[in-house]
Amino acid sequence: MISNTDNDRVIFDTIAIIGVGLIGGSLGMAAKRRGLVRRVVGIGRTEQKLMRAQILGAIDDYSLDMETGVSDADLIVICTPVRMVVPTLELIAASLKLGAIVTDVGSTKREIVEHAEAVMPEGRYFVGGHPMAGSEQGGVEYAEHDLFVDATYVVTSSAKIDLESLGKITALAEGIGSRVEIMSPDDHDASVAIISHLPHAMAGALLKTAEDAQRESRKTFNLAAGSFRDLTRIAGSSPELWRDICVTNTDSLGEAITRFQSYLEEFKAALASGDEEGIRRFFEQSSEIRQAYLRMAK
Amino acid sequence: MISNTDNDRVIFDTIAIIGVGLIGGSLGMAAKRRGLVRRVVGIGRTEQKLMRAQILGAIDDYSLDMETGVSDADLIVICTPVRMVVPTLELIAASLKLGAIVTDVGSTKREIVEHAEAVMPEGRYFVGGHPMAGSEQGGVEYAEHDLFVDATYVVTSSAKIDLESLGKITALAEGIGSRVEIMSPDDHDASVAIISHLPHAMAGALLKTAEDAQRESRKTFNLAAGSFRDLTRIAGSSPELWRDICVTNTDSLGEAITRFQSYLEEFKAALASGDEEGIRRFFEQSSEIRQAYLRMAK
Repeated sequence: MISNTDNDRVIFDTIAIIGVGLIGGSLGMAAKRRGLVRRVVGIGRTEQKLMRAQILGAIDDYSLDMETGVSDADLIVICTPVRMVVPTLELIAASLKLGAIVTDVGSTKREIVEHAEAVMPEGRYFVGGHPMAGSEQGGVEYAEHDLFVDATYVVTSSAKIDLESLGKITALAEGIGSRVEIMSPDDHDASVAIISHLPHAMAGALLKTAEDAQRESRKTFNLAAGSFRDLTRIAGSSPELWRDICVTNTDSLGEAITRFQSYLEEFKAALASGDEEGIRRFFEQSSEIRQAYLRMAK
Repeated sequence: MISNTDNDRVIFDTIAIIGVGLIGGSLGMAAKRRGLVRRVVGIGRTEQKLMRAQILGAIDDYSLDMETGVSDADLIVICTPVRMVVPTLELIAASLKLGAIVTDVGSTKREIVEHAEAVMPEGRYFVGGHPMAGSEQGGVEYAEHDLFVDATYVVTSSAKIDLESLGKITALAEGIGSRVEIMSPDDHDASVAIISHLPHAMAGALLKTAEDAQRESRKTFNLAAGSFRDLTRIAGSSPELWRDICVTNTDSLGEAITRFQSYLEEFKAALASGDEEGIRRFFEQSSEIRQAYLRMAK
C-alpha cells in the first residue's frame, strides 16, 4: 500500500469529484491509492450513494452542496453525463478558488471545451479529458482502482490552454496508469466518431437489417453465431447515453457516416457491375489498413 | 475411442473428400472418430498434402485422380473454394455410382445448388451444405475432430431435393456434433449476407474511413482500442476468398447493403435535423432487437 503522505507523488492537495459513479469512483480510488492526491471529496445529490463511495474508499469525504464542495478543491473532476458537464461548470464557476483546475471525463470534447473555456473565470483553468475506459454509466459498486491502467486517456489542448494545468492533468492521468494522448478537441471528436460513435450506429443499422430478414422468416438470427454477437455487442448500451454522445458530436459523426457510406457505395457498385478485381482490392486494402493499424497499436 | 466397426452408427460406407484442408480434414476426422463412416478417401492434387492428411488421421486413403477417387464413394464432399464446387461437380458427375450423394461446404448456396441440381445425373443426389465453423482456407494441420461441435450446419432443401439424401446429410452433420438448420438456398444466402458478408464490407469501409482520418493526422488509430480491433477483425481474411463469396451472393448482399444504408441514412437524417428522440429511439430499438436475438440464440 502506497502511503498518502508520500509527498513526492502528490499532484493535487484536494480534489473534488462531481458524480461518483464508475468513472468518478475509480478515479478517486486510483488517485488515492497511488498517493497522487491528499484528499478526495465526492459531490453528488444522493447521500446514500456518497456514503457507499466513502465506504468503498473512492472518496475521503463528501458534500451534497456543489458550491461548498468545490470551494477549497485544487482540482475538480466533473464526471456527470456528457451534456451536464457545461451546466455543472456554470454552477460551480463562481465558487472555484484562485488557481483551481477543472477537468471532465466526457465522451465528446469540442462542445464542452468551447463552452468551458468561455465560462471559466480569470485565474481558473479548464482542461478537457476523456479516459477511454469503462463508461459514463454504472455505479460506484463497479469502481476499480486499476480501471485506467493501460487505457488511453485523452487530454485536450487548445489555443487557450494553460500549460501548467495541462501538465498536471497529464501527470495525474499517467499517474493512474493511463497512456496519455494530447490532442485538439476537434481531432478527438473526429477520431471517436469513427472508432466508437459510427460503429454504434452501424451495429444498430445492422440489427435492424437482420430483423427485417427475420420478419420475412429468413431464420437469420438462427445462423448468427459468435462473430455477429461480438459485432453488435455495443448496441446493448444505454440509448440515452448514446443519444447524448451523438448529439454533441453531430458534425464529426455526420462526416464519418458520409465517408463510410461512400466507401460502402463504392463496394456495392463494384458488386453490381461484377467488378471482381475491384471487390478483391477493396478487401485487400482493408486488410492492409488493419495490419498497419495493428502494428501501430503495438 | 469409438470403434469404426460400430455398425449402428455408420451412415456411409465410403466417403470421398475433395480438398482435404481445414474443413475437409476436420470432417474426415470427425466422421471417422465417431464411427459414422467406414472409410474416408481424400482427393487432391498434391500427394504430400494428402499424405499429411493420412498421417493426421483425417483420411484412410487417398487418390490423385478425381474420377477414380469418387467412383466407389457413397458420399462425396466437395470442400474446394466456393467457386470451384460446380466445376468440380461437373468433372466427377459421370463417375458417380448409382445412389451416390454429393454435398459441399461452400459459404454461399443459391448458385451452387441451382447449378448442381442441373448437373447431377439420374439416380445421384445433391444436397447443399454449409458448416459454419472454421473457414474454407487453412491447411489440414489445423484440422480438428471437434471443429463442428455446437456449430451451426446449414443443409439446404429445395423443390428437387431427395428426402432420403437430405436425411443422411442431416444425420452426418448431427453426428459430428452440429446444430442442423434446414433451409432454402435463398434463405441461407439472404441470412449470411446480413450476418457475415455485409459485416465484412462494413469492416472494410470503416477501416478506409479511419485511414482517411489518420492521413489527416487525426491520431485516429492511437485511440482505437480493443473494441475497434474486435469490430475489424474480420477484415483480416483472404481478399480472394471474400471476393468469391461476395460475387456468388451478389443479389442478397446488394439488397442487404441497400437496406443497411437506408437505416444508416435514417440515423444520419435524425442527427442532422437534431431529432434527439429519433436518435434515442434508434438506439433503443437496436438494443431491443439485440436482446430478442440473444434470447433466441440461447
